[in-house]
Amino acid sequence: MNPANGPTPDFGIRPGEQAVDLPASPDAGVYFIGRIRTPWTERKDCPKNARASDAVCTVEVEARYAPALKEVETCSHLVLLYWMDKAPRNLVLQTPSHYGIERGTFSLRSPARPNPIALSVVKLLSVDGNKLSVVGLDCLDGTPLLDIKPYFASTDSVPDAVVGWHKRKDERAP
Amino acid sequence: MNPANGPTPDFGIRPGEQAVDLPASPDAGVYFIGRIRTPWTERKDCPKNARASDAVCTVEVEARYAPALKEVETCSHLVLLYWMDKAPRNLVLQTPSHYGIERGTFSLRSPARPNPIALSVVKLLSVDGNKLSVVGLDCLDGTPLLDIKPYFASTDSVPDAVVGWHKRKDERAP
Repeated sequence: MNPANGPTPDFGIRPGEQAVDLPASPDAGVYFIGRIRTPWTERKDCPKNARASDAVCTVEVEARYAPALKEVETCSHLVLLYWMDKAPRNLVLQTPSHYGIERGTFSLRSPARPNPIALSVVKLLSVDGNKLSVVGLDCLDGTPLLDIKPYFASTDSVPDAVVGWHKRKDERAP
Repeated sequence: MNPANGPTPDFGIRPGEQAVDLPASPDAGVYFIGRIRTPWTERKDCPKNARASDAVCTVEVEARYAPALKEVETCSHLVLLYWMDKAPRNLVLQTPSHYGIERGTFSLRSPARPNPIALSVVKLLSVDGNKLSVVGLDCLDGTPLLDIKPYFASTDSVPDAVVGWHKRKDERAP
């Protein structure tokens, strides 16, 4: 395991988990285009499921990108991509504490993944200059924002989608 | 406009479009974790709407990350994030040729955005080792893969979401 990519104290490795060596250097770079303001300053306080929280959060877009918000206010819902910069990136098998069974990183929504890009579908309440008020987030206050996209029901909504491992009766619902 | 971030020949700037200076250096790095194999080798051949195509595409995950696919096969649908490395990153207002009206980058799903991370919801057909067969992509052959996530209808599906500008009657459907 590459210590530089090792777990932080909040994300210790658990029995059954597996880490890999990551490449020596990244393939491309991302810009933080703003910050997400939420009520949660510690990981333990974040909602386990974003739909379980009706907290209004604020998305602050950096001034240079403010013109890119034109017509965003016509969207009822948005996809937000943000950077989970406190998570380790080298775990391929993980044992989430609330399940206790190891699963592949790509079958989980854990912030620990090679590219710690989180995705949330949020309801847009209002736009005020370069600030958006939204509902549906579960991240820490100050989380760096990567992208805002309009949510198109025609391509993004699959009401009957199934995550098989999550349906099994011997496991807790999230 | 920073020439280093300027449009490539396939993505020329159009009347009404606006570019900004991007930061001098990125804030974080991403790893390409695999490649997407599609039938399309030129941008003009890519489907305008991924749901309009039933082409089976292949997601090739790099060997080091193969263990991270454990239990992915139990998912009916996945979210794929990939890197649109041929798009300019400095456009904040864009005039898509099929609409002809400038809009903010964050109200569009255009690949041209500060962080050119595209998102597609795909139907998973099968998993064979480190290769996934999926339906629902619209990207060029060889596109770098960033992430695979399970699609949870409970948080990701919003059937009644509306993109207001797209509904206006004086504009073409996608």
